[in-house]
Amino acid sequence: MTAEMFPKEKTIDLRKKHIGPSCKVFFSHDPIKIVRAKGQYMYDENGVRYLDCINNVAHVGHSHPMVVKAGAEQMELLNTNSRFLHDNLVQYAQRLQATLPEKLSVCYFVNSGSEANDLALRLAWEYTGHKDVITLDNAYHGHVSSLINISPYKFHQLANAEQSKSVHVALSPDLYRGNYRQDHPDPATAYADDVNNLIQKAHEKGHKVAAFIAESLQSCGGQVIPPAGYFQKVAQHVHQAGGLFIADEVQVGFGRVGTHFWAFQLQGEDFVPDIVTMGKPIGNGHPMSCVVTTREVAEAFKNSGMEYFNTFGGNPVSCAIGLAVLDVIEKEDLQGNALRVGGYLMRLLEQQKEKHPLVGDIRGRGLFVGAELVRDRVKLTPATAEAQDIIYKLKEQHILLSADGPHRNVLKFKPPMCFSEEDADMVVEKIDQILTDIEKALGLQMPSTVHTENGSHKRNRMGCSQPDVEVSPHLQDRSGEGEKLCVPRRTHY
Amino acid sequence: MTAEMFPKEKTIDLRKKHIGPSCKVFFSHDPIKIVRAKGQYMYDENGVRYLDCINNVAHVGHSHPMVVKAGAEQMELLNTNSRFLHDNLVQYAQRLQATLPEKLSVCYFVNSGSEANDLALRLAWEYTGHKDVITLDNAYHGHVSSLINISPYKFHQLANAEQSKSVHVALSPDLYRGNYRQDHPDPATAYADDVNNLIQKAHEKGHKVAAFIAESLQSCGGQVIPPAGYFQKVAQHVHQAGGLFIADEVQVGFGRVGTHFWAFQLQGEDFVPDIVTMGKPIGNGHPMSCVVTTREVAEAFKNSGMEYFNTFGGNPVSCAIGLAVLDVIEKEDLQGNALRVGGYLMRLLEQQKEKHPLVGDIRGRGLFVGAELVRDRVKLTPATAEAQDIIYKLKEQHILLSADGPHRNVLKFKPPMCFSEEDADMVVEKIDQILTDIEKALGLQMPSTVHTENGSHKRNRMGCSQPDVEVSPHLQDRSGEGEKLCVPRRTHY
Repeated sequence: MTAEMFPKEKTIDLRKKHIGPSCKVFFSHDPIKIVRAKGQYMYDENGVRYLDCINNVAHVGHSHPMVVKAGAEQMELLNTNSRFLHDNLVQYAQRLQATLPEKLSVCYFVNSGSEANDLALRLAWEYTGHKDVITLDNAYHGHVSSLINISPYKFHQLANAEQSKSVHVALSPDLYRGNYRQDHPDPATAYADDVNNLIQKAHEKGHKVAAFIAESLQSCGGQVIPPAGYFQKVAQHVHQAGGLFIADEVQVGFGRVGTHFWAFQLQGEDFVPDIVTMGKPIGNGHPMSCVVTTREVAEAFKNSGMEYFNTFGGNPVSCAIGLAVLDVIEKEDLQGNALRVGGYLMRLLEQQKEKHPLVGDIRGRGLFVGAELVRDRVKLTPATAEAQDIIYKLKEQHILLSADGPHRNVLKFKPPMCFSEEDADMVVEKIDQILTDIEKALGLQMPSTVHTENGSHKRNRMGCSQPDVEVSPHLQDRSGEGEKLCVPRRTHY
Repeated sequence: MTAEMFPKEKTIDLRKKHIGPSCKVFFSHDPIKIVRAKGQYMYDENGVRYLDCINNVAHVGHSHPMVVKAGAEQMELLNTNSRFLHDNLVQYAQRLQATLPEKLSVCYFVNSGSEANDLALRLAWEYTGHKDVITLDNAYHGHVSSLINISPYKFHQLANAEQSKSVHVALSPDLYRGNYRQDHPDPATAYADDVNNLIQKAHEKGHKVAAFIAESLQSCGGQVIPPAGYFQKVAQHVHQAGGLFIADEVQVGFGRVGTHFWAFQLQGEDFVPDIVTMGKPIGNGHPMSCVVTTREVAEAFKNSGMEYFNTFGGNPVSCAIGLAVLDVIEKEDLQGNALRVGGYLMRLLEQQKEKHPLVGDIRGRGLFVGAELVRDRVKLTPATAEAQDIIYKLKEQHILLSADGPHRNVLKFKPPMCFSEEDADMVVEKIDQILTDIEKALGLQMPSTVHTENGSHKRNRMGCSQPDVEVSPHLQDRSGEGEKLCVPRRTHY
């Protein structure tokens, strides 16, 4: 198989002709053709190397030889459905279970994060007999119709968006830009109380809540790290209402957060969700995913009388690949690497914050990191065009980064887990240069520091005058998965 | 990787512990452990060979070396999302398009038949602005929540089934057991008129129809072959109501019907659906699928303002595998083989019908064949327990066959497309023996032949007395995908 079959222009033409126009490419004005990839690097048709800071799916590194070998060997032997007994299936379930709190013991293997979240809803509906779902603002949970309904990130894109009456949108527990911020005495309780209010309002209308669903760390929502203790309090309210807690680990699971294997574990030892959904990194790109729940929920689902069968889910090839991914994470200590390199990256970015007025907030855990850009550190005016410009200029320098969040102003790091300190140095150095150029053009300077009452420091609003920064029309494209890199029309500076 | 890691009992124990109890195995009292497969044969942990008459997913034969090679080579090179340009994606879209009528030119690549059918609904909803869906009785279209709603095969399983008000169930166009049969002067019009009646009733309630969806040949519904011309007439009614026609080829596409590449083409050259969904056989077991539609529908979907992104859909590995499957179908003339061997199998089964009173109807196209068993050829009393007994006894003789349809009395052939005349001889010979034994035990004999007015012949109702045949509880498990093999409690004969 040759690496390139058509010249790039022909590829683009065929794509326009035969691929749904709703399916966008990165950098639509000058898309990238990638023909091979290894580790944290991707290569275009001319052999140019790109540093990949965005592909969390290629979790253990692109085309990892152990994963490829496991998949190829099992394909050669057998690939069939889970109505036949197979050791890969049960061994993989056992291995996944071992990473989770004991009560999360029953697995359902499916093909995508969307299938996983849809099944999680079905489990919750069946177990509770309730219908309503509480989701977070800016959340994205998948592309099938049931999940568009619970994904404000998506349904806000629709011209004629109509929110389902059984879906309730809770405040995003964002400590930087949300309703309750770092200076709030107890944001975990305040945000959880908002969920409780929604439950009470639903009850007043005669509705009943089946589930609260949240990514353990909001990804498309802008790399949001909920305050510790928030999930426990939400779970209390939701359980009291007879509902279940679904932790969506599709973007953030499998050791990415460094200190723990699962991001929900950041909330504390005392928190265990009722359902966990997995996806993207689970098979290093192979289409597979999983839902894990308790025996109690699983038995209730069974007692509905409806069998669950998923043609491809849990096939021996997918399971062999999933096992290999677990092996590599362990063997190469990628969770440890995420902790070390993620910490290093955070420190580099914090230095950028000290230096550049546009950098409003640095937040992250392990190799899940966000840098939120603002034009004004008090008003938090989103620096959307500037964020997009950075992405574009990085691309010209062969670095792939994305900007996401409701204002598309959060630089979002979620690289393959083999990302190194040298990689972090390289990307932050480039960002530093680009920020310097942008700020120079805009006439921005670091504001003076003021101290707030509780001892933390705040900076004054930047006093500079802002030139009009025009947001080009394609900036309004919204990705759906936070992996969209739009090319803004060049701004005025 | 060893072929077997655990003794079979341990595999069963682990499965009970860690796999959702709604996920059933074939022959639950004595499940089969398969460790490898090749072509149309599967092998258990002791090396026992099973003839596979059911796995339509392993379309070009289990573990086909060309497919394995294509997948392994591409995995080694690159597996990433479709936001990067890649030639495999556009080449595959082009190749698929070439098998379809010209106006079906725009592809969306997804991961499963369920994702495909859900997206088809989203396309129809967005294009039409309507909400209602007409589906066929006994239909199965997938396991995500939106599809359970339009799958009577599934929602009838629920103890507290509640049919969505926006879903309308049309008569299954079954010429053997349905409302309009082979002796009807124009069943195509009669069944299409039923769809039109549903449309009119929906209109009376102020509802509007977004889509009619049907498998081109109903599979789980009992291997039903709709009369030619039916789809054209339905499409006329549905289009008049502003709706779209969705042809679900997930089970029956890719040359299986022998005369054509797609089963909807059996309806005649003048029929073209608005949306075609593909699945199971498309990647020979690799989790992938596709939705193809017209430019007009695709543009309307785009104009909704919502991007469509599917993390794994259309990745270079899936496309390489899809291309290899198309190559093998062509190179090994598997469509031709389906026509020849399917015809041969049908003739063998027709001989069984002449010989065995339990065989009520033989129907099929290519390697999609059904043999409906009845206790009474006039009343068409379903021979459910007998069908299950045959499946069980065939399994003891290392042949995998299933029984499906609303009464679970239709022996269902959908083997890998490399199935041979020798294989057909073997399975029919075994069925002949088993039928002989069952009929002897039941005291059944062939009835005398009577001629009906229009020259076709009918047989009298069998005059024998029927012992009570008890249907065991697990017979009531319903598979969802027509691949369930239940083991009945042995009947009284």
